[in-house]
Amino acid sequence: MNVSVVNFEEKFVKISELHSYKVIAQMNDYYFKLVRMNREFIWHSHPETDEVFVVIDGELEIALPDQVLHLKKGEMVSIPKGVEHKPKSIGECKILLIEPAATVNTGTAGGSLTDNNLEWI
Amino acid sequence: MNVSVVNFEEKFVKISELHSYKVIAQMNDYYFKLVRMNREFIWHSHPETDEVFVVIDGELEIALPDQVLHLKKGEMVSIPKGVEHKPKSIGECKILLIEPAATVNTGTAGGSLTDNNLEWI
Repeated sequence: MNVSVVNFEEKFVKISELHSYKVIAQMNDYYFKLVRMNREFIWHSHPETDEVFVVIDGELEIALPDQVLHLKKGEMVSIPKGVEHKPKSIGECKILLIEPAATVNTGTAGGSLTDNNLEWI
Repeated sequence: MNVSVVNFEEKFVKISELHSYKVIAQMNDYYFKLVRMNREFIWHSHPETDEVFVVIDGELEIALPDQVLHLKKGEMVSIPKGVEHKPKSIGECKILLIEPAATVNTGTAGGSLTDNNLEWI
């Protein structure tokens, strides 16, 4: 049986690139993904699923149609399915994403920022 | 639309009792629950689901049939469905649990430590 503890900091040390989503754990059909973010993302939504952002380090803004959320280290939010959102890091932000394994980062928006190259670390 | 940021530390301030699971967020049919733990729990399993433990503060041991996992702040583990496990805190440990909303803390073991009184905070 392969059950192992995941240390977020140690995993981030292994991530050299920005904006490359790395899978660190699975719970049923959900993936836990880490990403180092330093950009303003695009407006998009996931009609089929809620999506959780946990800030491990740094600061993150998530624009919604009617407000802008501000998250810092030790904070999380669950974005409801179908709700348009636009994440933007304040400098570099280290993020834990939790969502179904099949979820695509750009949702239904698609485009050049789509990352289908999920790697386990 | 009610989408709000959750700060783990601020939520723990609202939890006065040990071993009382409090729901802080929902992602589809999954709950994010906080618990302040200071005890050795019982052997149990959840045949229907994996279960994620994230240590927000303190130290946690989780005994499995073939090993003992040691987790500290900033670490997580996904316990596979059906695997017997026995969590034990080292002093007081602040834990984030992620699992389907219907998951019972004692799994199929039942007994006096079962907590069916889930409250949102």
